[in-house]
Amino acid sequence: MAESFGPGELDRIIHLLAKLPGLGPRSARRAALHLLKRRDALMRPLADSLSIAADKVVACETCGNLDTIDPCGICRDTRRDETRICVVKEVGDLWALERAAVFRGRYHVTGGLLSALDGVGPEELNIDGLAVRAEAPEVTEVILAMDATVDGQTTAHYIVDRLAGCGVEISRLARGVPVGGELDYLDDGTLAQALKARRGV
Amino acid sequence: MAESFGPGELDRIIHLLAKLPGLGPRSARRAALHLLKRRDALMRPLADSLSIAADKVVACETCGNLDTIDPCGICRDTRRDETRICVVKEVGDLWALERAAVFRGRYHVTGGLLSALDGVGPEELNIDGLAVRAEAPEVTEVILAMDATVDGQTTAHYIVDRLAGCGVEISRLARGVPVGGELDYLDDGTLAQALKARRGV
Repeated sequence: MAESFGPGELDRIIHLLAKLPGLGPRSARRAALHLLKRRDALMRPLADSLSIAADKVVACETCGNLDTIDPCGICRDTRRDETRICVVKEVGDLWALERAAVFRGRYHVTGGLLSALDGVGPEELNIDGLAVRAEAPEVTEVILAMDATVDGQTTAHYIVDRLAGCGVEISRLARGVPVGGELDYLDDGTLAQALKARRGV
Repeated sequence: MAESFGPGELDRIIHLLAKLPGLGPRSARRAALHLLKRRDALMRPLADSLSIAADKVVACETCGNLDTIDPCGICRDTRRDETRICVVKEVGDLWALERAAVFRGRYHVTGGLLSALDGVGPEELNIDGLAVRAEAPEVTEVILAMDATVDGQTTAHYIVDRLAGCGVEISRLARGVPVGGELDYLDDGTLAQALKARRGV
């Protein structure tokens, strides 16, 4: 006890918080103290929310999005364009696109990227489900919104092969200079892609 | 719903996690996804621990340390030296000293530092309790382990004044070059203190 840095229950919280991405042992200790100072405003609501979400949040059987209902709110929303499916690697990417509010179609979450290094094969991703959905008569376009990394592009190529013969148009996100990007900070690959894909003004 | 970045219960978790020190909205979203992927290993245990600790962890009436018992484990530990009291501003500092395992006496947590800027006066800190404890016949030394900042030193000065006449020895942590510190990265103040307090070898 004396050699430890707090009583058992606190040690346990710090140990668990330190497993979160973005937190290490030091910031987990600070977070634990912060929580203890705000028990009613933060600590108990967080405990309740975590417990409720652990039971209630499920992955949508159709698209893989996380929601408290299945099919998820996006799949159920009849105002959304059902002719377009945007393919992302994980729910965080779907949230990013929703925050940008630039896409009003449906999504498909693969659950990861193909990776020879990490031993992730097609059978571990939800690509079969996408192939089935792409066969539906109302679907006209599949947009591949994968990372512009080796694994992201490998996955995109694999999906293009799998969907060949479906008769849907397949597109991918544009590459180029990010908004707000300064040219002399960009890598050579991005500059090359931006120059190759230049547009008339 | 569609403009939001997740269903209600998830939004709530992200909102609460983003209030922790070291986490912003982006890392809170990553942490929430991480938790949902590890419901049994991480999410439910964290919910339970937070809930239990919110009810069970209390501040020690004697020293201000956090523990599930009162008096705390350190105040109850009869093997610890009861002649020395180390004064710290908060429990995190107490934990840091315990991790270093260099002090085997008792502690006193003031609960903060005097700050003219933030309007923190002596009545908001637990300094009366320290004055009472310092009167006890067994106590021979009070070690002020306050930050080497303006507020930390103001608080230390105030405590020295308050304890005058108690008959206890009052000391403070040494100032100087931190272990592993390179001279040309140190600020002038530290260099000046280190030179002034130089020791014969």
